[in-house]
Amino acid sequence: MSDSRDVLARVEREQAQYLEELKEYIRIPSISTDPDYKGEVLRCAGFLADKLRAAGLTVETIETEGHPLVYAEWLGAPGKPTVLFYGHYDVQPADPLEEWRNPPFEPTEEGDCLVARGTTDDKGQSYTHVKAVAAMLAERGRLPVNVKFLVEGEEESGGEAIEKFVRADAGRKLGCTSVVVSDTSMYQPGVPALTYGLKGLAYFEIRVYGPNRDLHSGVYGGGVTNPLNALCGIVASLRDEATGRVRIEGFYDDVRPLADWERKEFAALGFDEVEQRRDLEGAVRSGVVGYTYLERTWARPTCDLNGIFGGYMGKGAKTVLPAWAGCKVSFRLVADQTPAKIAELLRAHVEKVTPAGVRVEVDYLHGADAVTVDATGPEAEAALSALEDVWGVRGVRVRTGGAIPIVGTFAQVLQVPVLLLGFGLEDDRLHSPNEKFNISHYYNGIRTVVRLLDRMGG
Amino acid sequence: MSDSRDVLARVEREQAQYLEELKEYIRIPSISTDPDYKGEVLRCAGFLADKLRAAGLTVETIETEGHPLVYAEWLGAPGKPTVLFYGHYDVQPADPLEEWRNPPFEPTEEGDCLVARGTTDDKGQSYTHVKAVAAMLAERGRLPVNVKFLVEGEEESGGEAIEKFVRADAGRKLGCTSVVVSDTSMYQPGVPALTYGLKGLAYFEIRVYGPNRDLHSGVYGGGVTNPLNALCGIVASLRDEATGRVRIEGFYDDVRPLADWERKEFAALGFDEVEQRRDLEGAVRSGVVGYTYLERTWARPTCDLNGIFGGYMGKGAKTVLPAWAGCKVSFRLVADQTPAKIAELLRAHVEKVTPAGVRVEVDYLHGADAVTVDATGPEAEAALSALEDVWGVRGVRVRTGGAIPIVGTFAQVLQVPVLLLGFGLEDDRLHSPNEKFNISHYYNGIRTVVRLLDRMGG
Repeated sequence: MSDSRDVLARVEREQAQYLEELKEYIRIPSISTDPDYKGEVLRCAGFLADKLRAAGLTVETIETEGHPLVYAEWLGAPGKPTVLFYGHYDVQPADPLEEWRNPPFEPTEEGDCLVARGTTDDKGQSYTHVKAVAAMLAERGRLPVNVKFLVEGEEESGGEAIEKFVRADAGRKLGCTSVVVSDTSMYQPGVPALTYGLKGLAYFEIRVYGPNRDLHSGVYGGGVTNPLNALCGIVASLRDEATGRVRIEGFYDDVRPLADWERKEFAALGFDEVEQRRDLEGAVRSGVVGYTYLERTWARPTCDLNGIFGGYMGKGAKTVLPAWAGCKVSFRLVADQTPAKIAELLRAHVEKVTPAGVRVEVDYLHGADAVTVDATGPEAEAALSALEDVWGVRGVRVRTGGAIPIVGTFAQVLQVPVLLLGFGLEDDRLHSPNEKFNISHYYNGIRTVVRLLDRMGG
Repeated sequence: MSDSRDVLARVEREQAQYLEELKEYIRIPSISTDPDYKGEVLRCAGFLADKLRAAGLTVETIETEGHPLVYAEWLGAPGKPTVLFYGHYDVQPADPLEEWRNPPFEPTEEGDCLVARGTTDDKGQSYTHVKAVAAMLAERGRLPVNVKFLVEGEEESGGEAIEKFVRADAGRKLGCTSVVVSDTSMYQPGVPALTYGLKGLAYFEIRVYGPNRDLHSGVYGGGVTNPLNALCGIVASLRDEATGRVRIEGFYDDVRPLADWERKEFAALGFDEVEQRRDLEGAVRSGVVGYTYLERTWARPTCDLNGIFGGYMGKGAKTVLPAWAGCKVSFRLVADQTPAKIAELLRAHVEKVTPAGVRVEVDYLHGADAVTVDATGPEAEAALSALEDVWGVRGVRVRTGGAIPIVGTFAQVLQVPVLLLGFGLEDDRLHSPNEKFNISHYYNGIRTVVRLLDRMGG
């Protein structure tokens, strides 16, 4: 097995140039949830395809009903393992814009970090795959294993296209011996992690319709059901604020309980809740009975509002009784809950608690099954060793509250180990203003992928 | 007593021109709640001052800390009564803009109506005072009574300046024998009304602050208190949605009960709740025990959200756990509740129901005491007769849920009858898109004021 010294020396030499290339990638505002950015998402797919082609791979842009998939392959190592790299080139919207210190799509170096939308989630992380493979091919003209790339542009908006594609392909074009995903976090600074459990998601928009027009709250107040009050009542009924427990009937029926070994391993990590509380200025929920902070965020289902809107939202006062109100509410699920079942339970619950005088619509926007992958086979072992090679510390096994919808599909359709090898940190402000990525983690990520491929190549 | 035939003939002749003048007035977007419109509010005051001056009155623009007051007088009838006309030249914001059929500040004739912001509330209604006085002076060179005008530019944003001015003046400049206000509604089309009860108002903004930054709902969900969920819980605790009863401790302590004669007189009006329900497409609250629709909207205190906002409000989905959320909530009060006491009770309630992990701010934006005026003296009699002269139907005595903060102050400081003589209709869409005013009501309003002054002149 190669010690990778040749390639690592090249990475060392060329890293400034790799960073510039990442910045170019980040400057493209590939916001997949907003139809106004369709052109930018397309441009971003083109950028990635060009870079993979330039690295020496055969590239194919796969059109879909939504944003295109970028597929690439290098299959010059017959008899060797085949690694499928997955990532996403789309990003979350940047708002609230006024809270960014710099324009969200102008990557800015601040100390050790690169600040911009998509630096960690997922451009910065997944571009480590591209640069590792490019560096190996540049240095040696070949790779120790076969590689395939499948990079999507809809991860932040439901991932329908890739889901359909992977299921239809059924392992033909995508046949491989393992999948590598870099869209998760390290356990903490200096402690790399292999993630084995991802939460699922069920995301809804609820709209409450009352009178057929906005009304004067003086003239009509007390006479009609106010959609804003009704919405708040419906939302408040979803969860017991004191315990955090979801109050939808049947919500916990399919929850797979935490195994004893998991609770023990989580506890052994010595998570510092006091520090977390300090970091968030006291916002950490207290008084929840029965589960630790890590258990709640990693392995218990949740219900959170993500947005709410209705009536007058400007400065000062307006005495309006609005015709409608709406909110975005999402549930993070754990195995074996399914979005379809949760949607059904939510609709039944909402119907039960809706007051007279308003009409409610519950729209299911998107979701994903929860997934738990095996973290004990030879591929996982290679990954944990590669992490140790680069970071000097053995990786730990963790779960996360985030969803990566396609991971479950990969595991189910391709029937191979999925390695969730993340280089981000929990405080990278994913989905928030001033998202960041440690620049050294970008370089170490590239090194880790180089080591992983050399270890897998034997 | 003059039968007013001379002036009414002039009104008949010149009414098209009066309408054009009203349109000019309406075209000025004098939105007092939004600082961005400060210049337009000032321009509107200037327009009104010019018109009063042109009519033959002595005009003074009174600077205040907020928007100016327009004062005017004609005192050429010594020994006769003095009528003080009150109105407001400011208007509500126009949003949601997309729901207007025409630009909100471009008055458009649709059938019998003029459609634009401020047509009824209060430009169209209060301009009847100006045109009645102008027509009388033009026709006769004199008035049957002395008149004063005090028109404010902050009615929709709290009315602080006029409140201060009236109290400081203490009846010197404003000394009069009655006050006339046209900022209420007729009971129904064809049935004019004299309003004797106005609700008070206590308007608040509540903001809930959680984590010090927006967070990823996957990474942090279940771990921190979500300000959006917390806000909905707080808001839902304010009112029992099924009964409409406010659940703040002590809220009903100072409510003056409805007198038997009021309940009887309301019942005799034969309000058609079925028709109201049809008009609003079912939004009328049902199941509230103990009070009829009219009693609830006219004479019982209420709690309504007027706006709510926080997190992601755009298209599609964003899995954010926001740092803060806010809402606008107002209480309509009845005698003898006071905004100060309600603010105190609300703050105590919110403190009690705020969950751990968030911090809440309750800002009192503005308010008004509830007021009930006497509707049985000779001035009221003159008004009811003037209404009958013009509309052919005896006016009825009603209350309203709307607040006109200054009315209570007039009654208290000037110690004279306040006549609430409204020409609007309940379906005029006050504070809503496509606000309208029946053009014939504008003309009839002018005629009513002419008749009232002639009746008062004896």
